[in-house]
Amino acid sequence: MKTLGYAAQSPTSELGPISFERREPQAGDVVIDILYCGVCHSDIHSARNEWGGAKYPLVPGHEIIGRVASVGNDVTKFKTGDLVGVGCMVDSCRHCQSCDDGFEQYCENGFSGTYNSPDKIGGTPHAYTLGGYSNHITVEQRFVLNVPENLDPAAAAPLLCAGITTYSPLKHWKVGPGQKVGVIGLGGLGHMGVKFSHAMGAHVVMITTSPEKGEDARKLGADEVLISKDKDAMKAAASSFDFLLNTIPVGHNTDPYMNLLKRDGTMVIVGAIEPLTQVSGIPFIYKRRTMAGSLIGGIPETQEMLDFCGEHNIVCDIETIAMKDINAAYDRTVKGDVKYRFVIDMATLEG
Amino acid sequence: MKTLGYAAQSPTSELGPISFERREPQAGDVVIDILYCGVCHSDIHSARNEWGGAKYPLVPGHEIIGRVASVGNDVTKFKTGDLVGVGCMVDSCRHCQSCDDGFEQYCENGFSGTYNSPDKIGGTPHAYTLGGYSNHITVEQRFVLNVPENLDPAAAAPLLCAGITTYSPLKHWKVGPGQKVGVIGLGGLGHMGVKFSHAMGAHVVMITTSPEKGEDARKLGADEVLISKDKDAMKAAASSFDFLLNTIPVGHNTDPYMNLLKRDGTMVIVGAIEPLTQVSGIPFIYKRRTMAGSLIGGIPETQEMLDFCGEHNIVCDIETIAMKDINAAYDRTVKGDVKYRFVIDMATLEG
Repeated sequence: MKTLGYAAQSPTSELGPISFERREPQAGDVVIDILYCGVCHSDIHSARNEWGGAKYPLVPGHEIIGRVASVGNDVTKFKTGDLVGVGCMVDSCRHCQSCDDGFEQYCENGFSGTYNSPDKIGGTPHAYTLGGYSNHITVEQRFVLNVPENLDPAAAAPLLCAGITTYSPLKHWKVGPGQKVGVIGLGGLGHMGVKFSHAMGAHVVMITTSPEKGEDARKLGADEVLISKDKDAMKAAASSFDFLLNTIPVGHNTDPYMNLLKRDGTMVIVGAIEPLTQVSGIPFIYKRRTMAGSLIGGIPETQEMLDFCGEHNIVCDIETIAMKDINAAYDRTVKGDVKYRFVIDMATLEG
Repeated sequence: MKTLGYAAQSPTSELGPISFERREPQAGDVVIDILYCGVCHSDIHSARNEWGGAKYPLVPGHEIIGRVASVGNDVTKFKTGDLVGVGCMVDSCRHCQSCDDGFEQYCENGFSGTYNSPDKIGGTPHAYTLGGYSNHITVEQRFVLNVPENLDPAAAAPLLCAGITTYSPLKHWKVGPGQKVGVIGLGGLGHMGVKFSHAMGAHVVMITTSPEKGEDARKLGADEVLISKDKDAMKAAASSFDFLLNTIPVGHNTDPYMNLLKRDGTMVIVGAIEPLTQVSGIPFIYKRRTMAGSLIGGIPETQEMLDFCGEHNIVCDIETIAMKDINAAYDRTVKGDVKYRFVIDMATLEG
């Protein structure tokens, strides 16, 4: 099945057009014509091999929105023409405890990422998956999501990664009315954290280094802004938060944030996969505080998140780009110069 | 009220006899003749001012067992002759949310430590509290515990700190049958962690650097031993633990231990108040694992722990010493040369 896409050919090459083969659709497969694909910072790390393990050509993209082009005989959940999404996963072992629990992201045998992962289903010349910067994709039905028709499909694309990454911990730790919730960092993840925690009824505080980002956060639903460089303000806010969603994407000193939590409060790390530069035992011990991590979300929870977005009319704030402008968009993403996510209009894809 | 005790007079002086005044008993006070007092590593840190803030003369001791000598008119919970205990706290604000919840150790206005804390009740020449290395102590009834008469009173003394410090997180995180629990480090805290988690019905694994400590742990109730220096064994045990009680008393790399936890597993730090030397985001994010801290326990939970010990006949493994041998005991404690707690027989106290 001939496919057109955009690929990195090496860690240092710009992304450019590529033609490749997807597998012939199987009985459980959904073939999707891709309308939009979000640009996640992970795409850049992968294309540039900053995390190691990149296999070239590498077609990034795991925030995919499209319409069903055809379905296999065993597909019951979807029909031609449905508006659907695909996120960071296209497969998992489907039989471990985590898969059985609907937490495919924690699959004990490793899930298959939408790109640059070993392709367990096979049937293509490639031994690994190729992502959503392309005109269509074939995905097993379990890993395809229904997207509410009332949502702008372009602005819905980043829900599949930035959305679920922030929704999942807020739900898992039961954020809701009566709680004071801090969202640390205002980027692709943080801006969705603010929208979701506001929609869930919490009192939302944007915690940022930049006063101007604070003002933006108020427009997104933040009730307050806490400037993390302001030591007096941080001191005044000590021990006052029920929950913190920490979206900082690099290693950092977590002590000042942990000190913001009440007794038994929790901070969840969703961005920093690097070593944290300072973590002291005292903030944990003296208030029984907790630090946890969270990775995207399972398929049932991702569907729940999309349905929640449909009900509350929540989408991402995006800037739409043409496929050919992807390299400039990468450079701007690295500089943090985007509010808050680039989304590729796949109608602009040319071979 | 004339009292005889043992005190450090400076960070570098050995402990020696001291005579000092306790307050005249008030209506809510219990006067206790001290029988035994445990030797906690914190006593040494405090006496030597290793944590700063030491006020001299400093009388350590917060693992106190004694008999009630007299009670004030408002005391309802105790009568003369009762076997009682006093732990790390002798007061708190008694009106904040944490105090109302019975978590006096997390008092939002700061609890009064049994020694070297501002004495809010006053009535003594000292502005700060003096601890249990002494022949009697006067404590407000809320902070006095009933000690089951079937327990050896000397071996019960360290329950008031080492005991509750390990019991509280095991209970709070609901350790029980069907769970695999690791206790990291075998000292005063770790040996109680093994006894409690075994008594609570968990499958207990001693995690230690030293094979010989592992054998000791089996005698205390451990079902298995995992040598943390054995990389193959650590790898084989990855993602297999429901809960880890981390009693390592100094800063350390937590990543190898976090990797032992299952999805949604929790490691609780009870020993390390220093900065942890390495904490990476990945072990948290990839399995939604949690790291938390825990500080001693509240008064209701400390009573529950003592009652649990009475029912299960649990005490600490101790070495009893005479008061005059305290300085040698300090040196041996620093070297880790004690199984697992020194307890001072207060009958040996001479002026």
